[in-house]
Amino acid sequence: MAQDEQDTTMTTTLLSDLLALTNAALPPVDTLFQSARTSVAALVSEDGRVSGRLIEQNQTAAHGLSWLATYHQSLVQMQKWAERLQSDGKFGEVEQLIHQIAFGEYLSQIHGGIQMNQGEVVRLQDMGLGPDALAALMQPAVVTLTQSGNTQAARSRLVELMQEQSANLTTGATGLDEELEMIREQFRRFAIDRVEPHAHDWHLKDELIPMEIIDELAEMGVFGLTIPEEFGGFGLSKASMVVVSEELSRGYIGVGSLGTRSEIAAELIICGGTDEQKANWLPKIASAEILPTAVFTEPNTGSDLGSLRTRAVKGEAGDYTITGNKTWITHAARTHVMTLLARTDPDTTDHRGLSMFLAEKTPGTEQDPFPTEGMTGGEIEVLGYRGMKEYELAFDGFKVKGENLLGGAEGKGFKQLMETFESARIQTAARAIGVAQSALDIATQYAVDRKQFGKSLIEFPRVSGKLAMMVVEIMIARQLTYFSAWEKDNGHRCDLEAGMAKLLGARVAWAAADNGLQIHGGNGFAMEYKISRVLCDARILNIFEGAAEIQAQVIARRLLA
Amino acid sequence: MAQDEQDTTMTTTLLSDLLALTNAALPPVDTLFQSARTSVAALVSEDGRVSGRLIEQNQTAAHGLSWLATYHQSLVQMQKWAERLQSDGKFGEVEQLIHQIAFGEYLSQIHGGIQMNQGEVVRLQDMGLGPDALAALMQPAVVTLTQSGNTQAARSRLVELMQEQSANLTTGATGLDEELEMIREQFRRFAIDRVEPHAHDWHLKDELIPMEIIDELAEMGVFGLTIPEEFGGFGLSKASMVVVSEELSRGYIGVGSLGTRSEIAAELIICGGTDEQKANWLPKIASAEILPTAVFTEPNTGSDLGSLRTRAVKGEAGDYTITGNKTWITHAARTHVMTLLARTDPDTTDHRGLSMFLAEKTPGTEQDPFPTEGMTGGEIEVLGYRGMKEYELAFDGFKVKGENLLGGAEGKGFKQLMETFESARIQTAARAIGVAQSALDIATQYAVDRKQFGKSLIEFPRVSGKLAMMVVEIMIARQLTYFSAWEKDNGHRCDLEAGMAKLLGARVAWAAADNGLQIHGGNGFAMEYKISRVLCDARILNIFEGAAEIQAQVIARRLLA
Ligand SMILES: Cc1cc2nc3c(=O)[nH]c(=O)nc-3n(C[C@H](O)[C@H](O)[C@H](O)COP(=O)(O)OP(=O)(O)OC[C@H]3O[C@@H](n4cnc5c(N)ncnc54)[C@H](O)[C@@H]3O)c2cc1C
Ligand SMILES: Cc1cc2nc3c(=O)[nH]c(=O)nc-3n(C[C@H](O)[C@H](O)[C@H](O)COP(=O)(O)OP(=O)(O)OC[C@H]3O[C@@H](n4cnc5c(N)ncnc54)[C@H](O)[C@@H]3O)c2cc1C
Ligand SMILES: CC(C)(COP(=O)(O)OP(=O)(O)OC[C@H]1O[C@@H](n2cnc3c(N)ncnc32)[C@H](O)[C@@H]1OP(=O)(O)O)[C@@H](O)C(=O)NCCC(=O)NCCS
Ligand SMILES: CC(C)(COP(=O)(O)OP(=O)(O)OC[C@H]1O[C@@H](n2cnc3c(N)ncnc32)[C@H](O)[C@@H]1OP(=O)(O)O)[C@@H](O)C(=O)NCCC(=O)NCCS
Repeated sequence: MAQDEQDTTMTTTLLSDLLALTNAALPPVDTLFQSARTSVAALVSEDGRVSGRLIEQNQTAAHGLSWLATYHQSLVQMQKWAERLQSDGKFGEVEQLIHQIAFGEYLSQIHGGIQMNQGEVVRLQDMGLGPDALAALMQPAVVTLTQSGNTQAARSRLVELMQEQSANLTTGATGLDEELEMIREQFRRFAIDRVEPHAHDWHLKDELIPMEIIDELAEMGVFGLTIPEEFGGFGLSKASMVVVSEELSRGYIGVGSLGTRSEIAAELIICGGTDEQKANWLPKIASAEILPTAVFTEPNTGSDLGSLRTRAVKGEAGDYTITGNKTWITHAARTHVMTLLARTDPDTTDHRGLSMFLAEKTPGTEQDPFPTEGMTGGEIEVLGYRGMKEYELAFDGFKVKGENLLGGAEGKGFKQLMETFESARIQTAARAIGVAQSALDIATQYAVDRKQFGKSLIEFPRVSGKLAMMVVEIMIARQLTYFSAWEKDNGHRCDLEAGMAKLLGARVAWAAADNGLQIHGGNGFAMEYKISRVLCDARILNIFEGAAEIQAQVIARRLLA
Repeated sequence: MAQDEQDTTMTTTLLSDLLALTNAALPPVDTLFQSARTSVAALVSEDGRVSGRLIEQNQTAAHGLSWLATYHQSLVQMQKWAERLQSDGKFGEVEQLIHQIAFGEYLSQIHGGIQMNQGEVVRLQDMGLGPDALAALMQPAVVTLTQSGNTQAARSRLVELMQEQSANLTTGATGLDEELEMIREQFRRFAIDRVEPHAHDWHLKDELIPMEIIDELAEMGVFGLTIPEEFGGFGLSKASMVVVSEELSRGYIGVGSLGTRSEIAAELIICGGTDEQKANWLPKIASAEILPTAVFTEPNTGSDLGSLRTRAVKGEAGDYTITGNKTWITHAARTHVMTLLARTDPDTTDHRGLSMFLAEKTPGTEQDPFPTEGMTGGEIEVLGYRGMKEYELAFDGFKVKGENLLGGAEGKGFKQLMETFESARIQTAARAIGVAQSALDIATQYAVDRKQFGKSLIEFPRVSGKLAMMVVEIMIARQLTYFSAWEKDNGHRCDLEAGMAKLLGARVAWAAADNGLQIHGGNGFAMEYKISRVLCDARILNIFEGAAEIQAQVIARRLLA
């Protein structure tokens, strides 16, 4: 593009009165969402009550509603973010472009079809809405934004500015306070120095992340970030946990996931543990003297966790004996304690008979990964998300002390875990943002360096367009995730919000990795190039911590309850 | 779903007068396409002529037009297929459901946004069309089909029927004649017996496909399928090549790709070779006595092939000396001849100075992969598409006999290759169909076997919905590919049609693999499960033989020319 043409583009890409315009687009979306909820509720109710069976039978409608709610909430949070920045004098051209493109794109998808994933598009008609609802959506502000919000000119300009401001840690102000941004800087620096230079090698060699990295992270407080100070933690907000997870995962998903298990264990104990359990375990988890692993899934039981079969039988002395098989257990070998969910009531088959244990084990070595009596294990080779390794475990007469039953009472394990999953899913959403950001980092650099047809790839609209959409969706996923973290910090139940953040984040990361690879052309397919790993790593996010379909189901149930 | 509910579903899923309805939807799409073409042509023309520079500057609009044309052509071909089946009395419920869902989905995407890939949706407004064009599209037939064509009920029913008819080789009649279907059967049997049991192992061990498989395929005529009988081939149609490639790739993409290089070499020689070259090379290629490899791409030159730099200098005796670097050369080591594109005119920098050589080499062994003087090579480790291995090659004083200049004249190499790419892209579209079909095969089996929440996964609408969309899009990609093959068989230039088939097929395969993996949950992420390989294999299709963006560019140029 010649210089003079560029100037015209610059002045015409931004819609005038942007914030008022986007604000005016929210009520019609809200109205639409309410109609959709009413419509779906009618589909899934019998005798005036919402039925689980009917939700399942009308899964497309119900999950469509979840996605619609996620888009709605995304736009609401983007508007809040934009207004906050505006009043702080920080709503610059980059932020305006992100905001405008976000509204343009998400409104267009609400209107024309939301990509639940590639190949599965959900539309208003799937929720039982007719042309009227669509027409009602198309208020002037919505029409303007769908027609002119996400244009090629806006995307190109955004990428131009991103390159100019490449020294910034994020493209566009996150809206977080300075303390959090200082934390970001600290962990970004760590990731650049200690993680990024090695991550690809760890992946290719399928190695465990070195203990010294874990030690350094422990010193930086990663494992006790949100543990109360009285128990040896930092007592920081979930928002800080999000920022740390983002930046570590931007370095390498494996490193950004080291804290997940500590977060789950600590949260389980904080919410459900006895005073003794808190006093005993939390300080050791905070200091990483103890590394936990999360032991829930079984070969025949993944999504339907409530039906798991591993048995815990109480002996005369009050101790428990565990028998059964678990699988997909991340970091199982090198860790000291398992948060282990097992069935204590043999007469049940659902979640009511489950209990949670803090089951101690001896950390293994490479030669002898599972030295503890009553337990054996084998490694599962995986596409990505390496660095901690995954294992199948078999328990046969494995002993757990009675005092290590979480909360000292049986039958509470499932609900304890479900509450904990809120934090785990927020953290997973943050990991997704980090992975998406790493795809953006790597692909941008490649698009600048690689030349074809006499210019850098980044100058081709199809290439810069991909990068721009990554920038925009990363910001949307960020705002949704920060929102769910704030809700959690304020003591609100937030499985709905955390579910949305996880659901959207996982899709955003996967699309970013996929497009990042595409920008690399053939080289993206070479194991040697980092983006090939990022693709593999990104693929896990839609599967674990509640697969996308399960996440949508959880959200739908909450919306319709 | 209870039996009685199912019966209602069956009778309400199909729209009445389906063929008339879909037929009535075509003219509005055609009109829309013409408006879009006019609109984009105006954007990219200056002084009344289409400008390459402006196409590039308006790439989103131009590529959007390519995708719109691809969808338009898809629907046209589906209608022809449906009508043919109808008149043959073969338009059963499965075929009707596929047809209806295809129209429902593709019309909805034309209306609301076409997924060029995840994260890049192109809409009519991107092509400069306003709400009027959209309104004009929404004729009654289009409204009916977008509202009620692709419903959950239709998808569930389709999957139910697919399971009932699982003995059939394809879900839905392909519309091909009996001879071609017999060929399909033959190669399906071969794939089941000789390929599928080993493919995953070859992949995991990163091994070359055993020579005995190549020998068996040679005996079955794979390498001479479309070579004229006078030159030792079978003289069959491109359509037969498509069916064979589909079924072999369904077994394993590596095996389905063995023939690609022979197809390229044979086609180059048939179209551009001298009589002597035809007589000398074709019989040996047909019998696989000679295995060729395609040597075009260079480290700095992939999409912009015309600018490549490898030099061929003519010596006094009329022989050539090759100097330069090539990369990404599939099956380079084990093969006997390279179709090698190099620059013979040092004063040029574009396609005009390029020539094609049939450069002989000695096949390598594992110990000595590149024994021929003047050439060295190194393996590139890749995510998927293994089995033949990829290499970087360096030529330094490598000799090619003067008689091995294709067609005996310099400067024709690029156009010779571009013509050949038509066949190569048709073949690649067929490979994509095979890969998509393998994802469908594997995921269906898994969804039947795996139980969660007390039932087979396939009974959940989000799971069966994914499978149904695979079935439908595989059929669309098939019809588009068969169409391009017929065009080629009838001697028409078909880079447009072949480009569309390749473009769509690659996306369909990638979505199928992605969704097939998702259906596997955590197990999809385990290297042990086949679907993890299919995901890796599928990712190549959008990159090689013209990346998706280049394909869209080629189509756009043809549409606007
Ligand atoms: C790399 C990796 C690490 C992991 N780490 C751990 C760990 O440390 N600890 C641990 O306990 N677990 C771990 N897991 C397990 C993970 O949580 C499960 O894989 C996940 O919960 C999904 O369960 P599943 O694999 O059994 O899939 P399934 O439950 O069999 O689901 C398969 C597919 O069916 C869909 N599906 C299932 N039910 C329904 C329904 N009702 N409606 C619609 N669709 C449905 C799912 O969404 C999914 O797409 C890990 C998994 C992986 C791959
Ligand atoms: C596994 C594998 C096997 C292969 N086998 C062979 C083989 O046997 N023989 C052979 O010669 N080659 C082979 N190739 C090379 C293949 O053909 C090239 O990778 C392909 O042509 C793309 O070129 P590139 O990798 O240089 O990507 P680039 O040209 O660098 O493109 C990178 C990205 O930029 C995009 N892009 C480029 N130009 C533009 C533009 N003007 N506008 C918009 N976007 C643009 C591309 O679409 C792509 O997304 C193989 C590649 C792979 C990965
Ligand atoms: C599918 C899934 C959401 C629950 O399905 P379910 O068995 O139908 O369970 P329900 O939703 O009926 O919940 C069971 C109980 O827990 C309660 N519960 C669920 N989520 C809760 C939360 N966030 N906070 C408090 N209680 C909660 C419910 O209210 C219900 O209580 P009730 O029996 O008293 O009514 C759950 O199994 C799940 O999250 N699966 C994914 C597994 C996963 O993420 N694994 C990752 C391992 S790393
Ligand atoms: C991008 C690409 C399409 C061509 O770009 P380009 O350099 O701009 O070339 P053009 O489109 O201008 O074509 C050059 C000439 O070839 C001709 N040509 C192109 N396609 C043709 C076809 N299918 N049949 C006959 N002639 C053809 C053009 O008409 C033009 O002729 P002219 O110079 O006389 O006008 C080409 O480089 C390409 O296909 N790249 C992808 C590489 C690839 O697929 N590699 C796979 C290796 S396995």
